Amino acid sequence: MSDPVVTRLAVIGCGLIGSSVIRAARAKGAAGQIAVYDLSPGVRERVTALGLADAVFDDPTKAVEGADLVIFATPPAIIGVVAGQAARGFAPGAIISDVGSVKAAVGEALRAACPDTVFVVPGHPIAGTEQSGPDAGLAGLFENRFTILCPQEDRADAPYLAAVEKLSAFWTALGAKVETMDEKHHDLVLAVTSHLPHLIAYNIVGTADDLQNVTQGEVIKYSAGGFRDFTRIAASDPVMWRDVFLLNKDAVLEILGRFTEDLQALSRAIRWGEGDKLEALFTRTRSIRREVIDAGQESAAPNFGRDKREG
Amino acid sequence: MSDPVVTRLAVIGCGLIGSSVIRAARAKGAAGQIAVYDLSPGVRERVTALGLADAVFDDPTKAVEGADLVIFATPPAIIGVVAGQAARGFAPGAIISDVGSVKAAVGEALRAACPDTVFVVPGHPIAGTEQSGPDAGLAGLFENRFTILCPQEDRADAPYLAAVEKLSAFWTALGAKVETMDEKHHDLVLAVTSHLPHLIAYNIVGTADDLQNVTQGEVIKYSAGGFRDFTRIAASDPVMWRDVFLLNKDAVLEILGRFTEDLQALSRAIRWGEGDKLEALFTRTRSIRREVIDAGQESAAPNFGRDKREG
Repeated sequence: MSDPVVTRLAVIGCGLIGSSVIRAARAKGAAGQIAVYDLSPGVRERVTALGLADAVFDDPTKAVEGADLVIFATPPAIIGVVAGQAARGFAPGAIISDVGSVKAAVGEALRAACPDTVFVVPGHPIAGTEQSGPDAGLAGLFENRFTILCPQEDRADAPYLAAVEKLSAFWTALGAKVETMDEKHHDLVLAVTSHLPHLIAYNIVGTADDLQNVTQGEVIKYSAGGFRDFTRIAASDPVMWRDVFLLNKDAVLEILGRFTEDLQALSRAIRWGEGDKLEALFTRTRSIRREVIDAGQESAAPNFGRDKREG
Repeated sequence: MSDPVVTRLAVIGCGLIGSSVIRAARAKGAAGQIAVYDLSPGVRERVTALGLADAVFDDPTKAVEGADLVIFATPPAIIGVVAGQAARGFAPGAIISDVGSVKAAVGEALRAACPDTVFVVPGHPIAGTEQSGPDAGLAGLFENRFTILCPQEDRADAPYLAAVEKLSAFWTALGAKVETMDEKHHDLVLAVTSHLPHLIAYNIVGTADDLQNVTQGEVIKYSAGGFRDFTRIAASDPVMWRDVFLLNKDAVLEILGRFTEDLQALSRAIRWGEGDKLEALFTRTRSIRREVIDAGQESAAPNFGRDKREG
């Protein structure tokens, strides 16, 4: 096996994504040593019990010492604060990155918190599950999924570009396909492909839970009609998603505005009995799933292949 | 093996659901003989090639002859018309049912089309996939899923109750759990658990496809952030879903109104930075997924277990 891409990896915040990074790095031999910090004593205990890290710290400054790659995987709103706490420990030349679902706000916070001696390269793997915590991590989570890096556009110096290259090599080693993008565009794209879907799922599950004339028992029993799909996304980590909507407010509200406009038009088509319009939309959307499957981002099996008997 | 529940089953319209009924009936020995009618020559050819039926007809009147159970599985809007065409062939005492996702309008159309010599008991199995056609059917589709029957409330005579009992036994034999409900309540419950989720999924996929500042390629590549889930439902049969929204207009628009109200409140919470409200909703919705899983209506595996590597 060739030398690991990263000599010492520090993962700050070890939930679903942090622990998946660690598991993938171990499985692929992408990191020599792995250090972990988490604010929660319970999480630190689980990380220790699971044997995920070479060293587990209750102080972020200690955790990042000697690391050539530091990945912040806390809820997005506190990344800047924790980076500020850790900053004294950063090794000169270290790459400082993250996995947050919002990039402009988090990138700004990271750059503000970090000294000039390190290279800040914000990142975001487009992968996850609805589960949380260090036990939920999966070694294969990033396989064939995209990771977006948002290098600073005002830096074209060789050391910075080398840092971007190394971070890209790390994610590639974990099985991901790496793309670069500017932070604002990332936030708009993800508002469409991730933030709005989550908002809508949380909302519809909330609506169904609140009705008077349909009982919660009925909603649960007959959920296989479509509703159950939405409950998966609406089971995602509440704190992380609170942060995403607050930190990417503008893009989310913009895309939500478009969604609402379209929904009003669709509602009017139903009210007016315009079957042709409905059928045309439903035919167009059908072809998009085929493209998602062809792009390797989705299972072709019916119902996601979730029920063995349906396979 | 005991005698089949049904001596001769006629399935009128042989797509995903019709062919799943046949496959399940064969697998469970629930029907002695099976006759099929479909309007489409291509579908009739596939049904023949797949060996699904004992006899395939191009005339609904012939297909229903001698059948003690006739199940209409065409798109919902034409069930009444096709039932009218078939009516001359109905055997006296036959049970006439369907699988349509809307019950008040379809039940009314069925009753109008059928002579007094048969027993009309509308039905709806809450099961499906995003795929269509006779090749898409699955023998296990109804296993552990609910089938709702909507018997006429103005009939308590013994022959009618015996017909309801026999239809219930048929679905039970196919693996389903049977519930009865009045048609209007069915339409309201399904507006929540199925019709609104489909409407929202179609809409969000349409919105994402229409944007100028985010390319379709980006939407596809980064769809694993949540969007891909919605593409599954939005790949469902366009004609069937056109019919559902037109036939269940009132209930769909009522529930859509509630959804839109809630979405406005959520949007305002984001705009005003009310993190506590967001977190409270997201925490509440998380627990609902647990109930759906506990009710046996969903896989507990992360990401629906769709990616083997994630299992």
